[in-house]
Amino acid sequence: MGPGDPLLLTRQAMAVLGSADRVVAPTGSADEPGRAESVVLQAMPEISITRLPFDMTPDVQGGLLTRAASHREVARKLLPWLSTGEEVAFITLGDPNIYSTFSALVLALRQLGWEGAVETVPGITAFQALASRTGTVLLDGTESLSLVTALDGTTHVEEALREPDRAVVVYKGGKHLPEIAALLSSVGRLEGAVFGEHIGLEGEWTGPLAEVPEHSASYLATVIVPPLTDSEGQA
Amino acid sequence: MGPGDPLLLTRQAMAVLGSADRVVAPTGSADEPGRAESVVLQAMPEISITRLPFDMTPDVQGGLLTRAASHREVARKLLPWLSTGEEVAFITLGDPNIYSTFSALVLALRQLGWEGAVETVPGITAFQALASRTGTVLLDGTESLSLVTALDGTTHVEEALREPDRAVVVYKGGKHLPEIAALLSSVGRLEGAVFGEHIGLEGEWTGPLAEVPEHSASYLATVIVPPLTDSEGQA
Repeated sequence: MGPGDPLLLTRQAMAVLGSADRVVAPTGSADEPGRAESVVLQAMPEISITRLPFDMTPDVQGGLLTRAASHREVARKLLPWLSTGEEVAFITLGDPNIYSTFSALVLALRQLGWEGAVETVPGITAFQALASRTGTVLLDGTESLSLVTALDGTTHVEEALREPDRAVVVYKGGKHLPEIAALLSSVGRLEGAVFGEHIGLEGEWTGPLAEVPEHSASYLATVIVPPLTDSEGQA
Repeated sequence: MGPGDPLLLTRQAMAVLGSADRVVAPTGSADEPGRAESVVLQAMPEISITRLPFDMTPDVQGGLLTRAASHREVARKLLPWLSTGEEVAFITLGDPNIYSTFSALVLALRQLGWEGAVETVPGITAFQALASRTGTVLLDGTESLSLVTALDGTTHVEEALREPDRAVVVYKGGKHLPEIAALLSSVGRLEGAVFGEHIGLEGEWTGPLAEVPEHSASYLATVIVPPLTDSEGQA
């Protein structure tokens, strides 16, 4: 369903949501709509959505086991519906094949012996929406792009920055923003780098990384570092 | 407008196309609709589209100058409309900030002194559509992704393959498919790699890279090499 802006749903996503026997959405608590539910309801208010409570512990080391247990539990809840032949649509932020809960959920279903067919609908990623919102050209010609995470530190970011003509996108770096900014500054690439969080959601903030207010450091954080171009003396 | 499947247009793309004063589309020859025009008309048959003949020489060395001249010519054609305050929507395959003609066209307009506002609407990329079509999970956990081109050889691909837990996406590699397949085979990553071309367009082919028919080697070619996972003996 894309990064959170209801306008970024595709025609295919809407067609699938409109024709599925059941639409399910992850939520942190059964009493409240999750982000995915809220966004879809803005685009399609007539849809009825079944909430699936997920453990939302971030995927740091300690969280891995709790999350796996939570996926198993959700899979067990889905099984009866799937077994009676229901077509179930699972809504998820971003793209279901890129850092998504969806693949973990499918794995949990397979481990329970479910053999049904799985189809995914691609969604706009947060970094594409951020590039668009900030007027950032990501790639041109034969430039490359690295998409890395900084959940557990800036090692991947450092490595990706080695090539000046490579664009770098950093996901899940909310907790390490000051280190990332310092790193970029040290290689002369802070200028041009942009930051975004909660794109299309409440509390959206997008703009130059150098100007991020200190409180902004959420899980749904994205940094884009464009390639250094000719005009800046490189590549 | 996404990779070519009319179902992958977003609500925002359709809203912009529906409200613009003029919709323009690149085409190789003024007498025939370009790919972008054909796709948009499938989704929105009522739209009237102005064709802009572009030089479609691939962006190899010799083609750079011809292409730049062609962008200048198209920019000159757009100027009178933009100067009288028309809101002009330019449709382009994929995402307008990722290897797109659109950024080159904006540059040409700027060089002619145009100072108007530019906004882009993100689009589903070919690699996301290919992942979805082939049931390929691109990224999980703290894995990384490299998006590289192989227009002028396999150097970038080779480099990106060094890390086993990094997904690699190769664009514009149509002419070097046999080398890419050999390279993957030599590092044990041919299995799981998928290939797609003309996704959503006439002549679409998607499937395992190892099974690509020999004639398939177009400019709009995408290869995905998923990360090696635990079950295959790697992180």
